[in-house]
Amino acid sequence: MTRRELFLDDLAPGQIYESGRRIVTTEAILAFAREFDPQPFHTDPIAARDTFFQGLAASGWHTAAMTMRLILDGSFTPHGGIIGVGSEQLSWPRPVRPGDELRVVCEVVEVRPSRSKPGQGIAKVRCTTFNQHDNPVQIFVANLVVFRRPGDGQP
Amino acid sequence: MTRRELFLDDLAPGQIYESGRRIVTTEAILAFAREFDPQPFHTDPIAARDTFFQGLAASGWHTAAMTMRLILDGSFTPHGGIIGVGSEQLSWPRPVRPGDELRVVCEVVEVRPSRSKPGQGIAKVRCTTFNQHDNPVQIFVANLVVFRRPGDGQP
Repeated sequence: MTRRELFLDDLAPGQIYESGRRIVTTEAILAFAREFDPQPFHTDPIAARDTFFQGLAASGWHTAAMTMRLILDGSFTPHGGIIGVGSEQLSWPRPVRPGDELRVVCEVVEVRPSRSKPGQGIAKVRCTTFNQHDNPVQIFVANLVVFRRPGDGQP
Repeated sequence: MTRRELFLDDLAPGQIYESGRRIVTTEAILAFAREFDPQPFHTDPIAARDTFFQGLAASGWHTAAMTMRLILDGSFTPHGGIIGVGSEQLSWPRPVRPGDELRVVCEVVEVRPSRSKPGQGIAKVRCTTFNQHDNPVQIFVANLVVFRRPGDGQP
């Protein structure tokens, strides 16, 4: 399937781009955590019971990484790729548990052509990751570099 | 080696906690990106040349995950673990390249006992990840749940 490539000129505040779904397995939670975030609440289902999380939970960085993959496989497909320069907000309002099914909804919040670089601009996008109960597990407001359609906005 | 566990009462603005160092290999960049961020500038050293990054670069989420591991293995060791509720800022001012050596400096910015939960509070910590040239590659301002020393701040 060929997907349409998006340019800055295609984006407008209020647009919604949705991802597919992905189930989070215990094995995936443990594998990520052992490498990057080896704390008992992420690596040991038994020991996790007596922690802040009261049970095994995915590392927030694992949730962020899975969210990135869901976005890439979804309908938000800027020309040249998804290039984040940073974020104003990244929060994890509730834990991701084994068996949770995640999906991501990205909403365009702001579109700003660059003054100094006429071929590109910044899109602010709020990406909310939901579990199967439609509760948010991650909110990420990203500033992305997005290119202008060739011929548009050039000097 | 037993490391001292930190409580909220041990933290004060201006305190600095440093990590060790970690070299980022091409293999690690490719492995992370293939799973979570499969874009040419993260997965293909040749194709990466003609992209925004002009060469292979680590996924920002990989940098974030490596940063987490460096912090966990370093001197910032809150009792009960490092529990992030979110971030006000996460930025990647320059790419992480194969062979870069990363280290993290965490500075306590603010310490705020909870009003509703007397046994805990929030510490705001700015964690800056540097490469071997002492240039920042990631800036992350985190709000962490940190527990109070038993007996302190209890009702």
